Amino acid sequence: MFYLVGLGLGDAKDITVRGLEIVKKCNKVLLEAYTSILTVGQEVLEAFYGRPVIIADRELCESNIDDILKEAIHTDVALLVVGDPLGATTHTDMLLRAKQLGVETEVVHNASIINAVSCCGLQLYNFGETVSIPYWTETWKPSSFFDKIVGNFSRNLHTLCLLDIKVKEPTEESLTKKIRQYMNPKFMTVSEASSQLLQIIEARQNSNITKSTLVVGLSRIGSPDQKIVARSLGEMQNYDLGPPLQSLVIPAPVLHPLELDYIRHYSVS
Amino acid sequence: MFYLVGLGLGDAKDITVRGLEIVKKCNKVLLEAYTSILTVGQEVLEAFYGRPVIIADRELCESNIDDILKEAIHTDVALLVVGDPLGATTHTDMLLRAKQLGVETEVVHNASIINAVSCCGLQLYNFGETVSIPYWTETWKPSSFFDKIVGNFSRNLHTLCLLDIKVKEPTEESLTKKIRQYMNPKFMTVSEASSQLLQIIEARQNSNITKSTLVVGLSRIGSPDQKIVARSLGEMQNYDLGPPLQSLVIPAPVLHPLELDYIRHYSVS
Repeated sequence: MFYLVGLGLGDAKDITVRGLEIVKKCNKVLLEAYTSILTVGQEVLEAFYGRPVIIADRELCESNIDDILKEAIHTDVALLVVGDPLGATTHTDMLLRAKQLGVETEVVHNASIINAVSCCGLQLYNFGETVSIPYWTETWKPSSFFDKIVGNFSRNLHTLCLLDIKVKEPTEESLTKKIRQYMNPKFMTVSEASSQLLQIIEARQNSNITKSTLVVGLSRIGSPDQKIVARSLGEMQNYDLGPPLQSLVIPAPVLHPLELDYIRHYSVS
Repeated sequence: MFYLVGLGLGDAKDITVRGLEIVKKCNKVLLEAYTSILTVGQEVLEAFYGRPVIIADRELCESNIDDILKEAIHTDVALLVVGDPLGATTHTDMLLRAKQLGVETEVVHNASIINAVSCCGLQLYNFGETVSIPYWTETWKPSSFFDKIVGNFSRNLHTLCLLDIKVKEPTEESLTKKIRQYMNPKFMTVSEASSQLLQIIEARQNSNITKSTLVVGLSRIGSPDQKIVARSLGEMQNYDLGPPLQSLVIPAPVLHPLELDYIRHYSVS
């Protein structure tokens, strides 16, 4: 059996009881470590589970997944995924591949930022489509995600912006070489995301989202030291929300009184 | 401390390890039993937790919540909620009330249908706003949710439709009487929801959603006997997905090849 087990958002104890039972009984346990991270690392998880955990990077999950899946024909293998296991396309793809190989699968769901974002008081049913904000490079500065934010905003819907993370990304120079070299991991902050949004707004001139628009920054949601702040986009550019992971919400222009009451608790101005 | 603890979607073991620790240590544990249900009842939860659990109905949660919160000033009280605790407005409202009364609060997140819907292979970031389909009565047949579905569909986004549940609802006749009488609990099925949608489509004539549109029915997501089927809306009207809870998804008209591959597994035609 091939298990995809969601770890939730905070630390080791955010796994479900069902998930923990699976982790304890499996022959092999892998930790997917490139689409998201917990607030604790491999050692803490191993101590909590009382068993070794193998780090699974992008290469393993995308190129060598067949070997793992073939093992799961005869033994029990679990892949642990931060948040809910089906939040990223990679893992849906794995389930399809498993079906093709005749491997039985089971998914253990958990909280993800897609639903836990409700902790800021904005109602889930008032969210439009979720967007991802990628790190810009010197030569690649996409802004199509902004159209989706504007679309949600104009229909009075909130937008959850997932912020880019880069873990074990090959450097551009090493892509053509035999030996891969990797960049240091980096996690986009709410401040960086706000800065990219402000550059897009400036370039486009007539957007209904401006530097005065109220936005909500979230960090380390689900952990005891989670932070939620409400500021104007202009102010958010200079606000430090601390360690990763972080997410940004662009609320609808007109909030429900209950949402407004709640957001006030996170706002200084 | 007042804890809001998410129970996830399946049975007793879908609580997180953190959540279970809280349940075991609290002085009082309530189970919110009117916005959603698990596949198991109070007795199974009590046996699993090794402690009594008090059923909290709408009256208790909405009218008498202050008494509960005041208790939580000096002792530890947990309210258990199926799915994620902040999926319904009721619970966000409780947190606001707690702040006003000076009660400390903590939220333990868990999976909800809002993210677990990804189990059907449709990508979460391709979902537009979520809608709720209410039970129609003889005199009340709202259809505004249909405009939202059409809006999502025309922007090539999926729509998750949450289906109405009625638990401990007073009968209309008893609303004006001293002694309340309650209706039997009922949970809208995918078949019933499809039938209401077809009636709206017929009344409106020129909708881009028709009885031939592909829809996905989900039941008991997160439990071992979960069911996922893909059918035309017309066929779904006559399809029995078994016991509750059920949800309906109206996928975008153009699917990603990966989504299409996945959906095929749930489709007969």
